[in-house]
Amino acid sequence: MSQDPGLASWLQLALTPGLGPATFRSLLQQFGLPQAILARRRAELASLVSPAVLAALDSEEVSQAVARAHAWADQPGHFVITLADETYPRPLLEIPDPPALLYARGRVELLSRSALAVVGSRNATLQGEANAQTMAKALSEAGLTIVSGLALGIDAAAHRGGLGGAGSTIAVLGTGIDIVYPQRNAALAAEIATRGLLVSEFPLGTAPAGPNFPRRNRLISGLARGCLVVEAALASGSLITARAAADQGREVFAMPGSIHSPLAKGCHALIKSGAKLVESADDVLAELSGFRASGYASTTKQAPAPESGLLAHMGHDPVDVDALCSRAGLSADQVSSELLRLELAGRVAALPGGLYQRLEKAERR
Amino acid sequence: MSQDPGLASWLQLALTPGLGPATFRSLLQQFGLPQAILARRRAELASLVSPAVLAALDSEEVSQAVARAHAWADQPGHFVITLADETYPRPLLEIPDPPALLYARGRVELLSRSALAVVGSRNATLQGEANAQTMAKALSEAGLTIVSGLALGIDAAAHRGGLGGAGSTIAVLGTGIDIVYPQRNAALAAEIATRGLLVSEFPLGTAPAGPNFPRRNRLISGLARGCLVVEAALASGSLITARAAADQGREVFAMPGSIHSPLAKGCHALIKSGAKLVESADDVLAELSGFRASGYASTTKQAPAPESGLLAHMGHDPVDVDALCSRAGLSADQVSSELLRLELAGRVAALPGGLYQRLEKAERR
Repeated sequence: MSQDPGLASWLQLALTPGLGPATFRSLLQQFGLPQAILARRRAELASLVSPAVLAALDSEEVSQAVARAHAWADQPGHFVITLADETYPRPLLEIPDPPALLYARGRVELLSRSALAVVGSRNATLQGEANAQTMAKALSEAGLTIVSGLALGIDAAAHRGGLGGAGSTIAVLGTGIDIVYPQRNAALAAEIATRGLLVSEFPLGTAPAGPNFPRRNRLISGLARGCLVVEAALASGSLITARAAADQGREVFAMPGSIHSPLAKGCHALIKSGAKLVESADDVLAELSGFRASGYASTTKQAPAPESGLLAHMGHDPVDVDALCSRAGLSADQVSSELLRLELAGRVAALPGGLYQRLEKAERR
Repeated sequence: MSQDPGLASWLQLALTPGLGPATFRSLLQQFGLPQAILARRRAELASLVSPAVLAALDSEEVSQAVARAHAWADQPGHFVITLADETYPRPLLEIPDPPALLYARGRVELLSRSALAVVGSRNATLQGEANAQTMAKALSEAGLTIVSGLALGIDAAAHRGGLGGAGSTIAVLGTGIDIVYPQRNAALAAEIATRGLLVSEFPLGTAPAGPNFPRRNRLISGLARGCLVVEAALASGSLITARAAADQGREVFAMPGSIHSPLAKGCHALIKSGAKLVESADDVLAELSGFRASGYASTTKQAPAPESGLLAHMGHDPVDVDALCSRAGLSADQVSSELLRLELAGRVAALPGGLYQRLEKAERR
């Protein structure tokens, strides 16, 4: 990432205090890529940027912040992904306010997977956490990457469930990517940085601050094809994420509960206004059926790896063992053991109902 | 009722074994009222009725059954209501297979009220029964008559709740109206016969028999403007009632629960297929708003009772105290105390949100 000669310019603009994503996008629109923007005389930028921000742009503080970001990005498994990068998650290009750049740590290829947001209350019940984890694990096993916000309660349970399946998990932080918040999730964050992916749009060192969390929620929903709310009170951040999901054209899912549970009321309100009621992973998968086929396919330009014999007989739709036997001319035993091998290799996902689905191999860098 | 000279003919046709409601309606269509049908030569009826049924029609058994029904209907509070009777519930005229006659016991005027079916599992949880009773009471207090099937569990709780409000309750039996089933609900049935209404389409003495219960369910939903299911397993009679409600163009409502409760699964299935999720009485009332205005108004031809001053200022739409003050030129205190008096007299219902609605006074006979 840090070898990219343009990255310094992206960072310089992104790290200038007062130069927000909307202004950044306006500059890109008017002047082209960051290198071209910065090559302009400063007076030319004045139509879009205030004098104070222009002064900050070439300040020593920003220069130091750029150097720190470069140093951070030089470490293994650390990435700075810009709007112009082919790794930039395509679903975010559909939302009205995509961040100019993302800091990411971990398995960056997860950004090209079909994903589901799973969010909910920080003060969840034990049963709610168990439900979130079970559901996230089943969906991850079906190939969906679980996106959440690393909060206590439902978020943490969703990440744990996601780590338990092939889809893994993405945590979108409301702080700088080098800050762990809340501290009680430090071990979980470390595990996600290794086996999943941490993502943040905020500059390194950004401490926890109220407004950044609801702002961050649009990325949780934006990265995903749908948003499942598991336990939420009527006034809760999870409902902000669900509303963002609906505004972004994502499916909204909610898990029902007792009419006497305050933590079911948010979910019930969502269902009343059109969210899909979810009792099981199947309910989500049914709505997202063919999620690989219509989903956000890998944008890698690498030549595809040669396909195993069985993969060549799998289209993009789920298929059962019997159909594969007849297509490939193999016995059920042969097909089953090959499927197991492909599943372990992350090339195939086992879906509910004895179906199997081919996974696109997304290798990025 | 028994003074009606035509009633004997209605009973003779209805009580003839093998002459079902569909044949009965065909005969009415072709030959007119029962007296006219029976005045025909039997050979003329042979196009619609088999020889065996024709023989039964004039049998001693049927004659005795008619006499028993007359004797039953002669008792105070007992009614036999025919399709031609103005007391016959109008909502049933909208369903494809209205019974030719109904046996009723109790406050027959309840048949002209806006009603809601509340049904559910016989093996309900204690919480489910409490929910059903609380919900039914609140809806009855808002003026809706609660219709159910006198089964154990949710049905019984719904009837008890209905008895607790002005709307009261109607129990539609799957047996003859002179049979109490199940026996454990004998005391409840007696209370409904006094303060509510028992209804059956089956001849006197009809013992409990499997097929009669699902058949009866179409009347539970048919008498009502909507059907609320409180706790139901996936394969349950309550779902038959809910399907009948949907087929009859009634609203379907369902109460959610834990995803781990087998008795929530039926409700969740209904919500997934479009039923309204219900947490509170308000959720039902919101869907049936203006239920008096558009509902099945009384068909009585009696002169309306003279209206209190305030009633004259209430239309059929819900209205708040402020609006009534300005319409009637009274103080808020005066309006409130008059509203309370009218509410206690059953002339006005208090709705959620501080609204009041005029109730039609339905006196039948």
